[in-house]
This record gives sequence, C-alpha cells and structure tokens, in this order.
Amino acid sequence: MIYKKIQIEHIQGICQIYIGAGCLSDKALFSDFIAGDQVCIVTNACVADLYLDQLKEALSGKQIDVVMLPDGESYKTLDTFSQIIDKLCERPHHRDTTIIALGGGVVGDITGFAAACYHRGVAFIQVPTTLLAQVDSSIGGKTAVNHATGKNLIGAFHQPKAVVIDIDTLQTLPDRDYLSGLAEVVKAAIIKDAEFFDWMETHLDALLKRDKAILSEAIVRACGVKQAVVTSDEKESGLRAILNFGHTFGHAIEHNLGYGDWLHGEAVGLGMHMATTLSKILGDISPEQHKRINTLLERMGYATKLPASIQRDQMLQAMWGDKKVCKGQMRLILLDDLGSAYISDQTDLTILSELIDTYIDE
Amino acid sequence: MIYKKIQIEHIQGICQIYIGAGCLSDKALFSDFIAGDQVCIVTNACVADLYLDQLKEALSGKQIDVVMLPDGESYKTLDTFSQIIDKLCERPHHRDTTIIALGGGVVGDITGFAAACYHRGVAFIQVPTTLLAQVDSSIGGKTAVNHATGKNLIGAFHQPKAVVIDIDTLQTLPDRDYLSGLAEVVKAAIIKDAEFFDWMETHLDALLKRDKAILSEAIVRACGVKQAVVTSDEKESGLRAILNFGHTFGHAIEHNLGYGDWLHGEAVGLGMHMATTLSKILGDISPEQHKRINTLLERMGYATKLPASIQRDQMLQAMWGDKKVCKGQMRLILLDDLGSAYISDQTDLTILSELIDTYIDE
Repeated sequence: MIYKKIQIEHIQGICQIYIGAGCLSDKALFSDFIAGDQVCIVTNACVADLYLDQLKEALSGKQIDVVMLPDGESYKTLDTFSQIIDKLCERPHHRDTTIIALGGGVVGDITGFAAACYHRGVAFIQVPTTLLAQVDSSIGGKTAVNHATGKNLIGAFHQPKAVVIDIDTLQTLPDRDYLSGLAEVVKAAIIKDAEFFDWMETHLDALLKRDKAILSEAIVRACGVKQAVVTSDEKESGLRAILNFGHTFGHAIEHNLGYGDWLHGEAVGLGMHMATTLSKILGDISPEQHKRINTLLERMGYATKLPASIQRDQMLQAMWGDKKVCKGQMRLILLDDLGSAYISDQTDLTILSELIDTYIDE
Repeated sequence: MIYKKIQIEHIQGICQIYIGAGCLSDKALFSDFIAGDQVCIVTNACVADLYLDQLKEALSGKQIDVVMLPDGESYKTLDTFSQIIDKLCERPHHRDTTIIALGGGVVGDITGFAAACYHRGVAFIQVPTTLLAQVDSSIGGKTAVNHATGKNLIGAFHQPKAVVIDIDTLQTLPDRDYLSGLAEVVKAAIIKDAEFFDWMETHLDALLKRDKAILSEAIVRACGVKQAVVTSDEKESGLRAILNFGHTFGHAIEHNLGYGDWLHGEAVGLGMHMATTLSKILGDISPEQHKRINTLLERMGYATKLPASIQRDQMLQAMWGDKKVCKGQMRLILLDDLGSAYISDQTDLTILSELIDTYIDE
C-alpha cells in the first residue's frame, strides 16, 4: 500500500511517520521496525475493541503481550506507568523488545515513558488513534505522566522508531475529540505555515466533515510543521517552545476547570484566540491578520469566552505557575505575522490583565 | 584549590569530574555548575550526618531543599524515586533547578533518575561519597531504580553536569565498602590499562591503607578508563559492555544470595576471578597473565570460592536471566590480554558449567 511519509532525523536516530488509510493492519510496514521477537501493545479497552485485533494480526508471528490501561487523563500517572513496567518485567521482555502505543495521547505519553525507562530505553512505535495524538503528541519524542501538582512533570524525551497514522481511525472519533485535535492542526498553520492557513480557510468545511483526502493532506501538513520545529530543537531549549502557542492560556483554563472538563484542544482553541488578540494589542500583527485568524478559530467552533467559573486572578495565577515560567518570568508565545510565532519573555502584567478581562464571561 | 580534572564530552553536553581533598566544601566549584537559584540535595541520614552541613555551606545563597532517603539498596525503588519527585513538585522546583546527589551509588542512581525525569530532565551534580560511586556509578550517565524482578530495570541515561569527588570522604568509609569500590578500580586496570595494572601491583599496600596521594591517583586512572569507554559508546550498544567484566558472574552471585549479603564489589571481585580463569581456559590469555590477575585479586581479599549456598545450576540460571542476554545468547566479557577485554556471545555451556564447578565451595 502507498502512504504519505515524513522522516524525522533526531539525535537518537530516525523516526518514520506513515500517514494513510489502513496502515494499522499492514504487516510489512511493522516488520521494518521490529527488530526482536517480542512486542508489547499498550492500549485501553475502548480503543482495543475497535483496533486491537487488526493490529495483532499485523504483528502475527511475534510474542504479543497486551497491557490494558484505564481510560482517561486521570490515569496518566506514575502508578499506571508502573503497571506497564511490571508487565514487561514479569514476562520478561528483553532489551530488543518493541513497545507499541495504540490509542490517544494519554496512552502514547505513558507508553512512551515506559519505553524510555525500561532497560533505560527500548524500541517504541506510536499508533495514534485520535487526531490530537496523530498531529501532536505522537511526534517529537516527548513522553510523560502527570503529577498531582501538574501535567507532564515526570517524563523523558524518547523518540519512536515509527509513527503509524491510520486515518481510518478518525471516522470513529467523537466530535469533541476531533475538534480538540483540529486545534493543533490550525495551530501548526498559524505559527509556521501561512500557505497552510490559506488552505485551511478554503477547505475547512470538508475538514469538519472528515473528508479523507482533505484530512490526510491536513495531517501531513501539520506533521510537517511539527517535524520542522522539533528537528531544529529537539530538547525544547528554544524554538520548540513556539509549539506552545495558545498553551499557556489553555493550560491555565484546564488547570482552573480541572483537567478533563474542557478537552485540551478546546482550551488551546480559546488560548490561541487570546494569544492572537494579545499579539494585535502589542502591535505585532495587523487587525486584518487578527481577524482572519480568530474568524477561522470561531468557524471551527472554539469558545470565545472563558468558562464562567474562572476569574482574572485565577487565570493569572495559573499562568504564572505554568512550567514555561523561567526564572520568575512568564513566557508566552505570540505572533509577529500570520505563519510566524515568537517567544516573548517580557509580558506586561497590566496588558495581560486587561486582555483576560475582555475574555471573562459575564 | 587545585583538583585533578577529567572532562567527558557526551551527546547531552560536557561533564566535568573533579578529584581532590576538600572539593565538597568548595563554593566556587559548585557555582560554576548551578545556573538557577534552586538546588535540591538528595542524601541519606548516614551521609548527611557527616557531610550535609559542609555541602550546604558551599551552596549558601541558593534555595536549598533536602530529601532524605532511607539507606540501602532495598530502597532503590520507584517509590523512593517518587518521594524525590514529590518534593520537587510540591516546592515547586523550576526547570532551571539543580539536583545534587550526596552519597553512594544507590543515592546517585535514584537521584539521577529523578533528575532525568523531572520536567523531562533537569541539571544534576553527583557528589559521590563511596569509592564504588566515585569510580563507577557516578560516571557515565546511567541512572536507575530496581524492580522486584531485577536490578536497574527502570532508568535513563542522564549525564551529570559535574562529578565532585572529595577523597576525604573515603576516610570514613567502612572497610567492606572500601574493598567493594576497589573492585571497580582494579577492573578498570584489567580491562583497559595494563600499565595501571602494573602500578596497582606496586602500590596495592598503600592503596589498601587509603594513602591519599595513591588513592587520588588510582581514582583518576580508574575514572579515565571509564571516561574513555563511555565516551566511545554512550548508550552501551557495544564497547561499553566491557565495563561489565566480572559482572555477569557477580550479578548471579548477588541474585542468588539476595542483594546486600555480599556487597556488589565483593561479588564482582570473585566474578572477575572466574572470568579471568575462563579466559585462560579458552586460551585467550596466558597462564602467567591469569596468575598475575588472580593473585592481585586474592591479595586484595576477594573470595576465591562461591558462597556455600550456591549450586552450579543456580549460577547458570541466574546468568541466563541476566539482562545482558540478547536474543537468547549469553554475553560474557572475557580477556584477550592483560589490559584488553572483549565481548563474547558464544559461551560454551559445558565449559562454563565445568568452570563454575571449580568455584563451588565444598
């Protein structure tokens, strides 16, 4: 079968991304990336019902173990990580085993962290089944679990050998999850690819209807942006931070609501709206650019007001506590053009407060 | 103050090793490696009694948090790792914090793993206070905790920014721990530095008496060997495995006795004796070389027989289960010269069984 393919070269080696319909069941594809005789698939019951049999079929001939994780962000913990490790140790899996994450971002993040730590790092393949995971969390090697005090505080950089993106899996995705994933797609366009943004404006209706050809194109472009940014800055010391566009606001919303009330992409959707407005206020982008971006975000269906329960000071406090704070300064990702983001370490608190006030739902 | 210095260049950056008397209390030395305003010292009560105040003095002016770990290999677990993470999260420590391990190999391994995972990797300094940690575990970036089913199964490669080796700390080390550390010193000579081996033969008495000048020289040379091997193979894909000389036998002894009964270096001391004899049986080294090496090991005081409780099949089974088994074959490090080790993947089971029989204590 023919898939679209993106190659990421990084410090730890090469990661191949395959994008297409049906690649989840392609035995030949997987066999290129599995060196040993053992695989361990990590998934959850919901995803397993839909895709586990197909994947196992594609891996036939190997010793296949399966770890079922409970479903949801609240289980993205060291305890769940520990369950995967226990399974690997008890069987036991050797150093040349391959761990496969089948599911969304939560499954991918926990599983990647387990693969990073088991024997100090074993081979790992991502099979993301949500749009968010396909265009964002599965690419770039960031793995983590949450701590009671904050998200992704415990983790590692561990690159997958391959990311297998089967767009057929998106047909079964609930609407809210699909929209949540689209936030990262449009983010890619806004921060680094003006032409892709034009394309999104044109093809948004087809994209919202999950037209396969359009979807495939959008994923390839979004992955391309992520790949370009990640390759240039694997460890997030500088440029990679632009991928956090909308995220400092978004995380503050999630933090205040409690994670899971709004989906990640829903919070980031509003976060991008706010960051775009701030960029206009600072004179970094024109009113026309501001309008184009925020109109598209609104057409996609993201909120334009903060949840009623959140007050200004709660937002500020949560933003200040965001892990992107470096030496007491707040780091925000802003725009200096459509298709161009920059890192700002000098956010004026008064301007920021006023901005938040305009988003308070009264 | 003037210390001996070794620089290791690795993928993640540069690690400076300082070796000398009193460096633990040298404020200027630490200030070169601490970028932020926060430090977290991880240690245990026994070491803290002796050295924590000195170290805190050297770090004065920083926000200093201290995590006290329970003492012993049995606490080298994910739970203990989690305690460090909890402390970092609750304070909270930012991304530019520096974690300092003050203690032996257990403290260094757990702390390094916590530093590797917190925010996906923060700065880390090793202040090893046992000989074993100074010449072996603190150098090379291997960090880990144990799993109920085996040692070091959960970990990461995370290089310290600096390793501060204060040889004054060795004066308070119990005799057995000191001897355990010397096993890794003589190992370095045997596997890669014949001239250092000659030197050890000449200076062994002074070394056993912990003469500071001789000790300092031995540590520099042992660290030099480790540095050379690690630099050439950071992720243990090939050459680095020679550092496991004596360890497959040693781990099998520890595994059968239960970890902690014999110290690591005591088990490796006998393991090197066995591996040297196997090398002679295979015709890889001469009877004269065999005699020189094993005579030195015996002068140092390592056992020449297995513990009475261990039978041949128990040894074989434990060796087979060792994590250095790759695709069902047992990997052993053997010698083809004094000062030269090689990796053997083709161990004849009959010869190995007969060798073990000669070490059974009857």
